Amino acid sequence: MSHRPIVTLTTDFGTNDHFVGAIKGVILDIVPEAAIVDISHAVQAFDVLDGALAISQAYSYFPNGTIHMVVVDPGVGTTRRPILASSDGYHFVAPDNGVLSMVYAREERIRVRHITSEHYFRQPVSSTFHARDVFAPVAAYLAKMVDSHKFGDEIEDYVRFAAPKPKATGEGRLRAVVLKVDRFGNLITNVTPEDAPALFAAGSAGFKIVVGSREITEVRTAYAEGAPGEVFGVLGSMGYLEIVANRAAAAQITGAGKGSEVSIFLGEAAAAGKGA
Amino acid sequence: MSHRPIVTLTTDFGTNDHFVGAIKGVILDIVPEAAIVDISHAVQAFDVLDGALAISQAYSYFPNGTIHMVVVDPGVGTTRRPILASSDGYHFVAPDNGVLSMVYAREERIRVRHITSEHYFRQPVSSTFHARDVFAPVAAYLAKMVDSHKFGDEIEDYVRFAAPKPKATGEGRLRAVVLKVDRFGNLITNVTPEDAPALFAAGSAGFKIVVGSREITEVRTAYAEGAPGEVFGVLGSMGYLEIVANRAAAAQITGAGKGSEVSIFLGEAAAAGKGA
Amino acid sequence: MSHRPIVTLTTDFGTNDHFVGAIKGVILDIVPEAAIVDISHAVQAFDVLDGALAISQAYSYFPNGTIHMVVVDPGVGTTRRPILASSDGYHFVAPDNGVLSMVYAREERIRVRHITSEHYFRQPVSSTFHARDVFAPVAAYLAKMVDSHKFGDEIEDYVRFAAPKPKATGEGRLRAVVLKVDRFGNLITNVTPEDAPALFAAGSAGFKIVVGSREITEVRTAYAEGAPGEVFGVLGSMGYLEIVANRAAAAQITGAGKGSEVSIFLGEAAAAGKGA
Repeated sequence: MSHRPIVTLTTDFGTNDHFVGAIKGVILDIVPEAAIVDISHAVQAFDVLDGALAISQAYSYFPNGTIHMVVVDPGVGTTRRPILASSDGYHFVAPDNGVLSMVYAREERIRVRHITSEHYFRQPVSSTFHARDVFAPVAAYLAKMVDSHKFGDEIEDYVRFAAPKPKATGEGRLRAVVLKVDRFGNLITNVTPEDAPALFAAGSAGFKIVVGSREITEVRTAYAEGAPGEVFGVLGSMGYLEIVANRAAAAQITGAGKGSEVSIFLGEAAAAGKGA
Repeated sequence: MSHRPIVTLTTDFGTNDHFVGAIKGVILDIVPEAAIVDISHAVQAFDVLDGALAISQAYSYFPNGTIHMVVVDPGVGTTRRPILASSDGYHFVAPDNGVLSMVYAREERIRVRHITSEHYFRQPVSSTFHARDVFAPVAAYLAKMVDSHKFGDEIEDYVRFAAPKPKATGEGRLRAVVLKVDRFGNLITNVTPEDAPALFAAGSAGFKIVVGSREITEVRTAYAEGAPGEVFGVLGSMGYLEIVANRAAAAQITGAGKGSEVSIFLGEAAAAGKGA
Repeated sequence: MSHRPIVTLTTDFGTNDHFVGAIKGVILDIVPEAAIVDISHAVQAFDVLDGALAISQAYSYFPNGTIHMVVVDPGVGTTRRPILASSDGYHFVAPDNGVLSMVYAREERIRVRHITSEHYFRQPVSSTFHARDVFAPVAAYLAKMVDSHKFGDEIEDYVRFAAPKPKATGEGRLRAVVLKVDRFGNLITNVTPEDAPALFAAGSAGFKIVVGSREITEVRTAYAEGAPGEVFGVLGSMGYLEIVANRAAAAQITGAGKGSEVSIFLGEAAAAGKGA
């Protein structure tokens, strides 16, 4: 079977404008045999952390050799660098603003290059649309098997931020946060089973989770396991505690949203804790 | 020409999250040459009937051999079964919750299997994202020409519901319903030409349709055949009576929406009928 | 490498319904090897000018031979003609309502044909969904290399409108308009560097732009070059003056939107001008 390169797109461009169409045209003009796959174009506008979360949750399901283009780029046209990050399995083309931070955290070996190879860019380069003029052609030439070292030199000082982790705030107490609200109104927290194993242990009790206006004392395994109007926890497919409701939006019921605090009380703290 | 399998996706996942991207990655990792086509990811959340309507309106336009993955799955992680339904032309991979009901109604010969072949699943299987871990890999292996009987045994007791049909409520009277509101604000009813031929006969008169705040006495052939602000009927491309307006949203003008009652008065009932 | 035709779609159908899925099915049934690329399905409903803008901003990035299907078609089912416009590089399949006007303005040599070849249509042709039954099959047969002259005779009287241009309203004064608001809330005006070179000259001063509630006296090169809350100008990637803000929606800050007036004062008029 012939080589059929895959290029994925993760951006905050939305799909109401011509932006994504122009990007796909540029890629297909260079590498017409490519399969272009949208991961999401609905990253929150200008929100680098939201983009970091989106790509980190999707990239690893793709075949080895996939090229992931990730453009959440409020600094387009300034001195922020375009970069090419290469792990054993994937290439990532992105602005150097931290949008790959959660990829760096998961990939043990990664080389990051500052893209300086202007002869691969579309000319003239618009100062407001590097996705079309810089990132798309670089992704396309990677898909044509141009060697990564031809795009620029390796750098070590690339931008990365630590994903927010739950913080211990006392004996048996954790303060976590809602990372995002998904399409169903589920509240995706930043709590993993490692942070609080007791929440996910079979038959566990003696904990309390406070989010918005609600106290939660149950963690179950499926969305459908709740009574109407009940809010409870689930270990979601992203690997995080989710606060959910059965066929309803937990975000609406609790009044919580992206960035809301999640207070967790374990053991005796759960018995003693009053609200948050 | 080489075999290029087609896999379509119909879900209620939206496109704001990483869900659809992860699904596509899983499919392409198994069958990189597949063409993956989005039918819609905007099925109303948790709404099995809305999903049934979406797939039933699109599947038959695809080439023979297409694999349709349909995931509207509020019961994910519970005992509801994953199924594979195979007609002469198509495979459908879906939860067994009735989301294929309108396909069953249209396809004379269909075999339905309970998918039990766990060795084809992604492991570990998340209890909240079977689209990624169960349905996508099964669709992908079907695209790789794995025989349908390898995925599980045939069943007869699969879930199906009857699509809502107009009901006679008296001589020359029908009570129908708005199945959905489309992007243009057209009200798609469940009335077919067979239910009420008089509505669609050329030069027909002597009928009245009541929807929301409006009485409709005209059925025409094109959206553009109405005066500004006028609400009228059209036989739409889905095969149903649509209540529409020219370059305007009939839903807004009538105040009606999904689930609204549609009262039809034919012949003498139209002359006598007062409102609904 | 084998021929892999590309068909792009630009419509006002949204992605909430089955419309786009049905269109893709029809195309793939005729030409299964085609790559179908969405440019946008979020053209404003019924808005031919918005569609004209979308296709004009994306089509030229695609490889030669690409077939662009453009359907914003409030007159579907009436006497408006389906047309096939062919330039040296591209085919365009669309209703003859002006939606290709900005393509005509950019392409020096273009032949327009009235599509009359009903044997290429899906039968029966719905009077409300020519995208599925007329435009999609024609695009697909073009992708199969059917000669354009087989679809109908050339016409000269096709519909075209002039894109709105800025108007001189006095010495050093221009009245322009907001063509659209993009996903980030940037106001895309119809002002090009040719219309008002002084706005874009390095180190230029002595001009004033009035939009909604704001006066703008700076045109910069990147979105990130503004202070929080500041509204300024940028020469955008579409080739037009954009009114923007750094990581914020200029549309919201100024209270302006699509169709809003943009007043430009140059030189002495800028010094003298009071507001609009």
